[in-house]
Amino acid sequence: MITVEIFQKRRRTLIEHMVSNSAVLIFSAPQVTRSNDTQYPYRQNSNFWYFTGFNEPQSLLLLIKHNEQNQQSVLFNRKRDLMAEIWSGRRLGQEVVSLKLGIERAFPWENINEQLYILLNGLTVLYHAQGENVEADQLVFDTLEKLRNSFNQHIKPINTLTDWRPIVHKMRLFKSKEEIEILRSACRISAQAHIRAMQICRAGMFEYELEREIQYEFNLHGARFPSYNVIIGAGENACILHYVENNSEMRDGDLVLIDAGCEFHGYAADITRTFPINGKFSKPQRILYNIVLNCLYKSLSLFRPGIKINHIHDIVVRTMTLNLLNIGILKGNLETLLSQQAHYPFFMHGLGHWLGLDVHDVGHYGILHRDHILEPGMVLTVEPGLYISSDNTSVPKQYRGIGIRIEDDILITENNNENLTNSVVKDINEIELIMAKTHN
Amino acid sequence: MITVEIFQKRRRTLIEHMVSNSAVLIFSAPQVTRSNDTQYPYRQNSNFWYFTGFNEPQSLLLLIKHNEQNQQSVLFNRKRDLMAEIWSGRRLGQEVVSLKLGIERAFPWENINEQLYILLNGLTVLYHAQGENVEADQLVFDTLEKLRNSFNQHIKPINTLTDWRPIVHKMRLFKSKEEIEILRSACRISAQAHIRAMQICRAGMFEYELEREIQYEFNLHGARFPSYNVIIGAGENACILHYVENNSEMRDGDLVLIDAGCEFHGYAADITRTFPINGKFSKPQRILYNIVLNCLYKSLSLFRPGIKINHIHDIVVRTMTLNLLNIGILKGNLETLLSQQAHYPFFMHGLGHWLGLDVHDVGHYGILHRDHILEPGMVLTVEPGLYISSDNTSVPKQYRGIGIRIEDDILITENNNENLTNSVVKDINEIELIMAKTHN
Amino acid sequence: MITVEIFQKRRRTLIEHMVSNSAVLIFSAPQVTRSNDTQYPYRQNSNFWYFTGFNEPQSLLLLIKHNEQNQQSVLFNRKRDLMAEIWSGRRLGQEVVSLKLGIERAFPWENINEQLYILLNGLTVLYHAQGENVEADQLVFDTLEKLRNSFNQHIKPINTLTDWRPIVHKMRLFKSKEEIEILRSACRISAQAHIRAMQICRAGMFEYELEREIQYEFNLHGARFPSYNVIIGAGENACILHYVENNSEMRDGDLVLIDAGCEFHGYAADITRTFPINGKFSKPQRILYNIVLNCLYKSLSLFRPGIKINHIHDIVVRTMTLNLLNIGILKGNLETLLSQQAHYPFFMHGLGHWLGLDVHDVGHYGILHRDHILEPGMVLTVEPGLYISSDNTSVPKQYRGIGIRIEDDILITENNNENLTNSVVKDINEIELIMAKTHN
Amino acid sequence: MITVEIFQKRRRTLIEHMVSNSAVLIFSAPQVTRSNDTQYPYRQNSNFWYFTGFNEPQSLLLLIKHNEQNQQSVLFNRKRDLMAEIWSGRRLGQEVVSLKLGIERAFPWENINEQLYILLNGLTVLYHAQGENVEADQLVFDTLEKLRNSFNQHIKPINTLTDWRPIVHKMRLFKSKEEIEILRSACRISAQAHIRAMQICRAGMFEYELEREIQYEFNLHGARFPSYNVIIGAGENACILHYVENNSEMRDGDLVLIDAGCEFHGYAADITRTFPINGKFSKPQRILYNIVLNCLYKSLSLFRPGIKINHIHDIVVRTMTLNLLNIGILKGNLETLLSQQAHYPFFMHGLGHWLGLDVHDVGHYGILHRDHILEPGMVLTVEPGLYISSDNTSVPKQYRGIGIRIEDDILITENNNENLTNSVVKDINEIELIMAKTHN
Repeated sequence: MITVEIFQKRRRTLIEHMVSNSAVLIFSAPQVTRSNDTQYPYRQNSNFWYFTGFNEPQSLLLLIKHNEQNQQSVLFNRKRDLMAEIWSGRRLGQEVVSLKLGIERAFPWENINEQLYILLNGLTVLYHAQGENVEADQLVFDTLEKLRNSFNQHIKPINTLTDWRPIVHKMRLFKSKEEIEILRSACRISAQAHIRAMQICRAGMFEYELEREIQYEFNLHGARFPSYNVIIGAGENACILHYVENNSEMRDGDLVLIDAGCEFHGYAADITRTFPINGKFSKPQRILYNIVLNCLYKSLSLFRPGIKINHIHDIVVRTMTLNLLNIGILKGNLETLLSQQAHYPFFMHGLGHWLGLDVHDVGHYGILHRDHILEPGMVLTVEPGLYISSDNTSVPKQYRGIGIRIEDDILITENNNENLTNSVVKDINEIELIMAKTHN
Repeated sequence: MITVEIFQKRRRTLIEHMVSNSAVLIFSAPQVTRSNDTQYPYRQNSNFWYFTGFNEPQSLLLLIKHNEQNQQSVLFNRKRDLMAEIWSGRRLGQEVVSLKLGIERAFPWENINEQLYILLNGLTVLYHAQGENVEADQLVFDTLEKLRNSFNQHIKPINTLTDWRPIVHKMRLFKSKEEIEILRSACRISAQAHIRAMQICRAGMFEYELEREIQYEFNLHGARFPSYNVIIGAGENACILHYVENNSEMRDGDLVLIDAGCEFHGYAADITRTFPINGKFSKPQRILYNIVLNCLYKSLSLFRPGIKINHIHDIVVRTMTLNLLNIGILKGNLETLLSQQAHYPFFMHGLGHWLGLDVHDVGHYGILHRDHILEPGMVLTVEPGLYISSDNTSVPKQYRGIGIRIEDDILITENNNENLTNSVVKDINEIELIMAKTHN
Repeated sequence: MITVEIFQKRRRTLIEHMVSNSAVLIFSAPQVTRSNDTQYPYRQNSNFWYFTGFNEPQSLLLLIKHNEQNQQSVLFNRKRDLMAEIWSGRRLGQEVVSLKLGIERAFPWENINEQLYILLNGLTVLYHAQGENVEADQLVFDTLEKLRNSFNQHIKPINTLTDWRPIVHKMRLFKSKEEIEILRSACRISAQAHIRAMQICRAGMFEYELEREIQYEFNLHGARFPSYNVIIGAGENACILHYVENNSEMRDGDLVLIDAGCEFHGYAADITRTFPINGKFSKPQRILYNIVLNCLYKSLSLFRPGIKINHIHDIVVRTMTLNLLNIGILKGNLETLLSQQAHYPFFMHGLGHWLGLDVHDVGHYGILHRDHILEPGMVLTVEPGLYISSDNTSVPKQYRGIGIRIEDDILITENNNENLTNSVVKDINEIELIMAKTHN
Repeated sequence: MITVEIFQKRRRTLIEHMVSNSAVLIFSAPQVTRSNDTQYPYRQNSNFWYFTGFNEPQSLLLLIKHNEQNQQSVLFNRKRDLMAEIWSGRRLGQEVVSLKLGIERAFPWENINEQLYILLNGLTVLYHAQGENVEADQLVFDTLEKLRNSFNQHIKPINTLTDWRPIVHKMRLFKSKEEIEILRSACRISAQAHIRAMQICRAGMFEYELEREIQYEFNLHGARFPSYNVIIGAGENACILHYVENNSEMRDGDLVLIDAGCEFHGYAADITRTFPINGKFSKPQRILYNIVLNCLYKSLSLFRPGIKINHIHDIVVRTMTLNLLNIGILKGNLETLLSQQAHYPFFMHGLGHWLGLDVHDVGHYGILHRDHILEPGMVLTVEPGLYISSDNTSVPKQYRGIGIRIEDDILITENNNENLTNSVVKDINEIELIMAKTHN
């Protein structure tokens, strides 16, 4: 559980990174329509939630730093409204914000146009994440305009707009012990769901039926939503990385790839397992599976502080290329193949990504961080894969139409890493054993 | 199942309602972000789906009617793209559109700016649903601008923009036998889910756990998604009409209100039941429940062709007001209370709404249609309710904090109505009986 | 003078063209910034002025036609405001609108969001010129949204949006006798300005100095503004069609092209003359000038009801091509040259355009109307030209760097045409004579 | 004349104020429509012109400062295009930019989307004046988005956006000797125009006729445009501060107020004189005029380095209040009247404003600078006024309906000020003398 004190500490840390005479604005997520007048289940913006733990839309967190001594936290949120609450649900309102959220002042969202510029007046730097939310940007620029064009001599413009994402995303990159505890739970629940899927899977079922079992298991442990749309790809569907139709019948003799993780107390797990629908790997499946599995084990042995994801990615690519050469999927000289990125048609994604409040954590910056030197407290996925299109006539026939990915979630520890998803089996014999028990 | 022929027939019907020398534009739904770079499960726009059965985003259906003889159907959709499909899923492309969807021509969505205005050139009326989709509106107005301001003498402006919603929503209002068949299935599946919830419900469980059982049952019958966010309101939570937090513990002695329906082949069911968490109604619960149930039975006996929803609503209000008077929740003269809408604080919503591809069907126009004379083929909900706030000190204490809604879905038949959700019990003794079996 | 009665008559005519149960919206022009906080002189939107004669910004004319008997005219305009008027000028306000403008009702512009949708409620067609004014479009679409999405059962959507430009532009195409009178005055004043320019022109003056004389003469006769930016192109500058820098010294031996017309009571004149800076045409100037002049005379002899501009354009092109062939600028076979549009590098614009409240009258549709059969009451320009670039080495040297355009304004009469700009000389000997008098 | 070297020096000064690793973006002004397809005479954006002297639209100045040693100047401008130039005028193109403007590199405006973000990549601060130009803002934010969301690891986001207006406006506040020379000329020309107006003014003329004379005189000296819309207010029209209708007949016995200044080489003059239409001040006119004139003389005697405009404003207000008390327009105790701002209904504007490229110079910030301590090199207007509404029955009858403003332009010198508009008379006897010569 993330307590009010932890949210407060996060806000203090953000304020420490701000220059004097500045403010930061962090907006809640908008509600989004599913069809006509119905909406998707509301998901709070990860950054907003990280600093507030508050789950209502039409909210804005404003932190003001006059100097090291003088600081203020403010929330704009919806005001109480009897009829609106009967129709659409309870609202916190302003009165209990200080008590419940530890935020010092609260103003009604409905007054934000009149109030925000007054709170910002006199500051010199505004931190805002421009480009994510059209309405938030509009509000910010209208506010800056008000400060700039006022005829009131006491109203002064703010001249600098700075992106808070680099600061906030760096904070989010390092997980506290409370976050690690939640991530551990998210991973454990997700692992159980994968095991349930293995146990229940039968030829003739449809892919979406495994989704049912997975979601059921998630919910049994208190996780109402997956952290991303569940991927259940049987046979060649496994070669589509973000396959979400899940509407094919699962055929005897094929593998099924399940990429699924729950969202637990806001944090994401992300596990992939690939296993035989009928419980027994065929020979070519076994060969390809072991290549991927070895890449995963190799990776897990290498992740530790001081190393870069990309470095391990290169080692995995070398291992994979050598293996593909050995089984005749690639042909030629190893070094030449490596220089040509010959593995790319078969393994076209990164080796892993950050994990946290988002399954692809810490914004759009994640991709850059593959070059980041790992440090304790980071959590990431490790997910080698092999995807052989059935159209690829250059590949020996027995391997075509097979897609395999095996993905674990790890925590970088002081000297090593901890596998958070170890509890879901991945060795061939273990999988076959667990499936045999229910597939007699 | 809605076949290609049925989609074609719908398009023909729409064309019949169009004037000569016109075209209609119906856009697919956009994809929507859940958090960071993840998206909610894609839900096609109901109108677009009604005429195409096609489930991809970035699509546009264009029907051109030159005259009664000369007509054309066109689809803009995403072009095939190997890398994009490996990452994000298969695309139909243009080549098989005619075969799979029965639409005559297909163009890549990527070329829409260059192609659409050429297809529209020379027409005089354009049917478009302005105000629903910012990007669609932008595209339409840019296209009109191109036609208006071209220096090419052969390019002519279109001067009239007409809303197709009144036409399309009227079409959707009357369900065909295929649609009724699907709705029957959606209702049957949803009914089974409600029964499962009754059987499994125990004091001490959390509300969201019943959501798990309901979704599991939906999926067992092939329905992957609910048609709206499931409402599980225990105790006073039932007094919040669209309560979706579902995170309270369910306490012994309270009622729980479940409002849940699945989406099956695109069509929505919408059922509400309210029952005692421990399996036995208390005396005040029983009294209030029977008031609502009587209102529902009364309504069901009245719905038939030739009558208006609002007329029945008035009868229900009279019944309810009389009953509230009898049990002391209202005080005074019946006619005075009726003229003052005294029931409103306890029953503040409409008696029902259209049901179809949307749970609140046929757009924003639904509300107007409560004044519509019912005809065979219409499908609607009937959902009287009573909500007594615990703060309402004017109400006898034993009734406070109780919320009850009972909702069935009906089809208007030739002379009467058919209850599509009859299979889920609603009489007190039936509910207690079914719960007793699993609650021994 | 256009009287209140004439504006009323125009509004009645527009209403006659509207369908029953409709309204038309015509917006005033916005004010536009010149630099920082200064604005360009306000120019009312021509269409708005055509129907109101009202010269304030932030105004909207609304005409409602319930049926042939029941109609209403409404103005939204700025309300009186003492301080604003001290700073920025007088406002009409609402009280005297009926008296001064003959418009039945007036509402403050400041209340338009609350008032407009109420006035439109219940209508079925809205006439609006979408795409000209972002704020007007926003207002219209917000209003349609209000009508569409109201929860009030008495508020009904408007489903059809029709462009009023084809109707209004057709009205404006035919000039009434009052308009013709004003156009006559505008042409007469502009003619006098051209003569003044000829009289004052001397080698060594700068082009902009003739602009001074022209504007002075305009103002002397009550015309404060030109109807378009005055073009004074000496030497090769004449080959730039919309040359407005006007900052070159005028050299002895060169021609100067002046394209200038005043705006008088809202209506435009548009005259071009080309004459020798030193008062005497050189031989090659004379040759080219007479080709253009003959084309003009030929055209003037042909314009009459029943004919199309494009038809005369073709005749002019033939004449011009033949002449260019004769003097060696073109070479080859006449018919081949015609089929190749060989004249185009030397005469690249149309023969004329409509004239009225705008110098390029009646909107963007003008270009289409070159195919329109002429009828009495139309006013247009006739403006053949020849432009020989100095870079064009395929042309005999003596002709290079010469640009000539001669433009008159004509009214199509019952059987013929009337040259409204006849009073400014254009024959070589007349020009030389008039210039000789002041150039001793 | 501002030479290329001066523009270069200005750019260097701006770069000196920038932090390392930053760039500044300064956009040209857009072209603006007057009516239908005609445009107002193009006026370059003052800031863009200040740094480039370049007069084309669709241009962007980009200055990049890597560090103190490594800097770069870049221009985006329209590419050469034969047909476009024949129609709309010559373009500089990219090839001669370095030679003509001293800017190192030039790219076609048409490529800005592909080029700008590459030039900005790797920088950390972007200076931009958000909120002035919708299209410029769009371009800037799209560019930031491109840098932020690129999948290319070598593309890095810019996190800080800073407003360059405070820097640039401070630069523009202090005039160089070349600027002062041009301002001197602008003031001298404008002075001559005011004298011409006095000489020509007669009862029975219309206000706009004096505008003709003023513009004629401007043009005679090479100034094609006024720096703001000429104000000619006869009689009570003088009480409207920005009266621009100029369409009233000037009546014998009334005063006329002329507020007019030319734009010369981009710089503005701003002179106001008020004089009797018939050449002779009446007694009440004389009394009021001398109050204003004394305020002006008093002000002129006070402006010098080290003082604030507001301080002199207070002295003027005291003088004026005392005088109004003396002649019975105000009644009561002087100090009380001062504390009540009793002068405000009669003198409701500031005493002066900065003058330079804009008549209200240096952006929206001007108003704040009235509190600025004056320094040598600043140029400003001094313009006391008195405006007595004819409705104001609390004022002795003879003073009603009179508006007077007298405005000079001054340069703050080392120890004093220099009156740049001294050459246009303002003493009553001088005015009467100059008018008598032409009015006998």
